[in-house]
Amino acid sequence: MTDRRGTFITFEGIDGAGKTTQIQRLATWLEEQGLRVVCTREPGGTRIGDAVRSVLLNPRHTEMAARTEVLLYAASRAQLVDQVIRPALEEGAVVLCDRFVDASIAYQGAGLGIGEEAVRAVNAFALGNLMPDLTLWFDIDWVQARERLLAARGLGSLDRIEQRGADFFDRVASAFRALQIAEPGRIRRIDARLDVEAMQQEIKRVVWNHINNDLE
Amino acid sequence: MTDRRGTFITFEGIDGAGKTTQIQRLATWLEEQGLRVVCTREPGGTRIGDAVRSVLLNPRHTEMAARTEVLLYAASRAQLVDQVIRPALEEGAVVLCDRFVDASIAYQGAGLGIGEEAVRAVNAFALGNLMPDLTLWFDIDWVQARERLLAARGLGSLDRIEQRGADFFDRVASAFRALQIAEPGRIRRIDARLDVEAMQQEIKRVVWNHINNDLE
Repeated sequence: MTDRRGTFITFEGIDGAGKTTQIQRLATWLEEQGLRVVCTREPGGTRIGDAVRSVLLNPRHTEMAARTEVLLYAASRAQLVDQVIRPALEEGAVVLCDRFVDASIAYQGAGLGIGEEAVRAVNAFALGNLMPDLTLWFDIDWVQARERLLAARGLGSLDRIEQRGADFFDRVASAFRALQIAEPGRIRRIDARLDVEAMQQEIKRVVWNHINNDLE
Repeated sequence: MTDRRGTFITFEGIDGAGKTTQIQRLATWLEEQGLRVVCTREPGGTRIGDAVRSVLLNPRHTEMAARTEVLLYAASRAQLVDQVIRPALEEGAVVLCDRFVDASIAYQGAGLGIGEEAVRAVNAFALGNLMPDLTLWFDIDWVQARERLLAARGLGSLDRIEQRGADFFDRVASAFRALQIAEPGRIRRIDARLDVEAMQQEIKRVVWNHINNDLE
């Protein structure tokens, strides 16, 4: 690893797929391997992004227009790229980000029916064309993911996006699947029905191979 | 006036040009003429937009990236169009909006150096191509506008955008001038050095002619 530039890894998948647990474990393990790791999440991850996050996820904001939602996610993302991700990559860190641009394509482009191209265009502006080096897509069906969410947090705790129904999450899951098929080199499927330990082993393997430029 | 659709009028110009006073007077006068009038402003004008406004204008948010600023203004605008402007126009109202898309082109495109085309593209998404029927650009030099602002509110009350310096506002003013030259039919120049009464007479004349489709 002689890169002056770091590695940008994003984690995608519907709510309840187990991303948070896996990212924390992976971060600890990568640090044990001597790498500098920066963990962040979307929406949020900066003071301004967290303020936007609270607007986005407020369950009372049922009147939010779909285009507003796309633009608020993109605004939070632009701030995160500028303030956290790009500086960390320039210092050679491994950046682990819980959700990124693929989430907008799946949730807003497909889930809300805004369309993939429009969402891509707004996000290209937000990102200044920074894309992840590697994306791990946690593949799980909505019923199982919802059971995990409810077991962990209870129905009353679901945010504005999580409260959407099965049809919405079916469109989101289909979109993630299509993205993975379109970009199999960048986006790797992780079977999120596996138990925590088995998932972690698979994630470590994929990430380590990527960092060492070992094209499988 | 047999239009089923209303008239969308926006007011542009740098801070301190006197827009707020003129809009209030014009609204009262148009209502006296029997028209239904809806007054709104940017950023804000909706519950979600006001939450975005407080993020945008917070003087402590000095770390805000230029692209974040563009996207937050566009998000507030998308919500205002969806929730207030489009429904009011469909009901035949005259909508008076304090700032709109031209402000983003001038303040972010030129002032922050993001570029006009990128700002236009993001806003085209936000607006779904709704543009003002008539735009009144309040032309005033920055020194005079700043004197008015400070006389009215004092230095400590300036928001994050208003705190920017003379160079920024010079670029903004030049951009407004270029927009007016490029679209003289839609954008009408109002001399904002005039006193309140003289400005109001000119504004009434331009607006009334427009509403009556009397092409000057």
